[in-house]
Amino acid sequence: MHAEIISIGDELTSGQRLDTNTQWISQRLGELGIVTRFHTTVADDLAANIQVFRLAIARADIVISSGGLGPTADDLTREAIAAAIGRPLVEDADAMAYIASLFARRGRPMPERNRVQAQFPAGSRVVHNPNGTAPGIDLSIPREGQPDCRLFALPGVPAELFEMWKATVGPALTPEGGPRQVIRHRRIKCFGAGESQLEQMLPDLIRRGREPSVGITVHEATITLRITSPGETPEACFAAMESTEATIRECLGTLVFGEEDDELEHAVARRLTARGETLATAEGGTGGLIARWLTSVPGHEAWYAGGTILSNIPERAAGAGVPAELMRTEGAISRKVAAQMATAAKERFGADYGLAITAFPALDPSAASPPKVYLALARQKGGVPDVAVHETDYAGHPAILKSLAGKRALNLLRLVLQP
Amino acid sequence: MHAEIISIGDELTSGQRLDTNTQWISQRLGELGIVTRFHTTVADDLAANIQVFRLAIARADIVISSGGLGPTADDLTREAIAAAIGRPLVEDADAMAYIASLFARRGRPMPERNRVQAQFPAGSRVVHNPNGTAPGIDLSIPREGQPDCRLFALPGVPAELFEMWKATVGPALTPEGGPRQVIRHRRIKCFGAGESQLEQMLPDLIRRGREPSVGITVHEATITLRITSPGETPEACFAAMESTEATIRECLGTLVFGEEDDELEHAVARRLTARGETLATAEGGTGGLIARWLTSVPGHEAWYAGGTILSNIPERAAGAGVPAELMRTEGAISRKVAAQMATAAKERFGADYGLAITAFPALDPSAASPPKVYLALARQKGGVPDVAVHETDYAGHPAILKSLAGKRALNLLRLVLQP
Repeated sequence: MHAEIISIGDELTSGQRLDTNTQWISQRLGELGIVTRFHTTVADDLAANIQVFRLAIARADIVISSGGLGPTADDLTREAIAAAIGRPLVEDADAMAYIASLFARRGRPMPERNRVQAQFPAGSRVVHNPNGTAPGIDLSIPREGQPDCRLFALPGVPAELFEMWKATVGPALTPEGGPRQVIRHRRIKCFGAGESQLEQMLPDLIRRGREPSVGITVHEATITLRITSPGETPEACFAAMESTEATIRECLGTLVFGEEDDELEHAVARRLTARGETLATAEGGTGGLIARWLTSVPGHEAWYAGGTILSNIPERAAGAGVPAELMRTEGAISRKVAAQMATAAKERFGADYGLAITAFPALDPSAASPPKVYLALARQKGGVPDVAVHETDYAGHPAILKSLAGKRALNLLRLVLQP
Repeated sequence: MHAEIISIGDELTSGQRLDTNTQWISQRLGELGIVTRFHTTVADDLAANIQVFRLAIARADIVISSGGLGPTADDLTREAIAAAIGRPLVEDADAMAYIASLFARRGRPMPERNRVQAQFPAGSRVVHNPNGTAPGIDLSIPREGQPDCRLFALPGVPAELFEMWKATVGPALTPEGGPRQVIRHRRIKCFGAGESQLEQMLPDLIRRGREPSVGITVHEATITLRITSPGETPEACFAAMESTEATIRECLGTLVFGEEDDELEHAVARRLTARGETLATAEGGTGGLIARWLTSVPGHEAWYAGGTILSNIPERAAGAGVPAELMRTEGAISRKVAAQMATAAKERFGADYGLAITAFPALDPSAASPPKVYLALARQKGGVPDVAVHETDYAGHPAILKSLAGKRALNLLRLVLQP
């Protein structure tokens, strides 16, 4: 069963509004085991709408549209569907009475224009809209040599659409006894290797036709492996994914830090909590980003001791425990300053670990090799204070440099905390 | 000139990720006077991709795609375009050398898979990607009885796509002498009042059919008034907006803090720079959010002296200049602790201003009235140290409580720095 979702409106094609209905509908269809293969958005143009509906009805078993059911002249969905399937528009008496009753209840006369909202392509069932004057359309459309196409046209107002889905469309698309097939996903989160490098470590998992399928996406250097499995029940889906997940974990080892919505800070939080230890931070170039990540984890009070954000101007850094003299002789972006930042943070906040990242250099696109920044981790090791300093390239898209450096710092700590 | 935008990826059709590239591209095309009539999103399926590209090339003068240019097996865009127009894929030597140089620069061997990223349908121009290994494709495709279709295929990573658009695609689509009709927007940014309260302060500016039109949107308590005007030139558009903008500024006074992409931190940065003064921060519940905002402003080294993130556990806060005893007797969420946080930050970092926000209380939905948090601003006033403490409701949607409190703190400082 394949679906296509159609969104209608100039405000969408012109970019004035972001379409979020389509994503929501895709998720709901997925839960019912229905795979969405196409999303189409079309401007308020009758010929274009007719073309889009015709194509969707031909190539998808289920078509869901949103928008274009209002009373104004640019609402063309009713007309477009009728033309696409070659049926006349006819008024539905119950829908007409319902729309009239909405105006009566508000004590307002019904504008003549609203009559069009009671018009449906012949043979439609009416989808009740408890929150507005735009009823939805439910049609089964015969196709030559193929099973019928089931089409639902819903209004574009998200609150109306959501409720109509829950009350009518979702149940209509759920076979008796629940869906025969459902789809479930599991996400494995990784950090510390590039996308293609990581793919090479896996034995041919990412290829078309494999079941369960494995997809790979990357967001600011965090790699997500998404396992997808269809099955008769959610439990069956997850059972079918088990060996694939085990293979991934075995091949990638400590590159895997979590699952689903986990970020590196969640992995760090779990390990610190398990060990009953605490962490303090000192940030140069990341300017509070690591602190913000850590403090976004519920319960962080138990293991996050506090942090500082340091300027790279020597006199100012002195206030946070880095002697101005050290910064002057070594430079703000240096091994020694990184080590001192980590040590000062650990001591000031009385934490078990001090994690630091130096200031960032100015970007020079003409440089032969990328500049460096320094990450440092201060802790007690074998009963004595220890500071490990890591040098890392300051390279990548400027928009993600902070995120990248912050993640590398957290990853350093994660690997040290690894059981 | 009509355009179609194509987005590619299972993560989009399945609803796992929201597509925002398409909206952005639609807006950019609109600025060039190009009307977008279709958006199409297609799953990672070769046959479906070929069909989508064929249809788009037939019905749109300009086709822009995003996604599917990565190195992995589910990246099908190169292959789909080549098949749709019946041309072979050929390797581009310069693109190959560039991709290899990116790996060399990072000191890593190039995985064999990345070779495919240098393959292009015959006749393509290469769209340089300064930030990643996926170059874009630029093709002019002859069509019977119609002018050529111009097709650009770009990577799906937003930061890469945006930059390639600005450097290559946008200029290529701008006719000599500029487009004939353009649309321009101007945004006025406000903080300190609710949306409807602010609308009531304006004389009937926000209504349909007005030209220039004025729209109002709110994002995490920052209100944006967007003035839109069509015209023959950008200059004509902006001239037509002048009196509307003047009216808004007159009616809203100090509620207006900036324009376009300005946030409160930019307004604060401008004022501090003008006065040659510096700021330090101490954050409880916002956990580094204010520091991150401030340090995201280019040149912040000149006026941002540094900051601390404090735990609400008394012993830990002592390390950042708030005596444990004070927190124990007053509570972490109190006027006196807020004042001490601001003073300690100002003194430790030797800054002219210390801005503080206390820890946040636990949320209790059954409470009769919202709990309070405290904001404090320490400074020299008339030659003597002064601390102003503000009490504010800790109320709103949980997802934006940090942002709301952080913005209120910055707004406090902004109003004090006002000329």
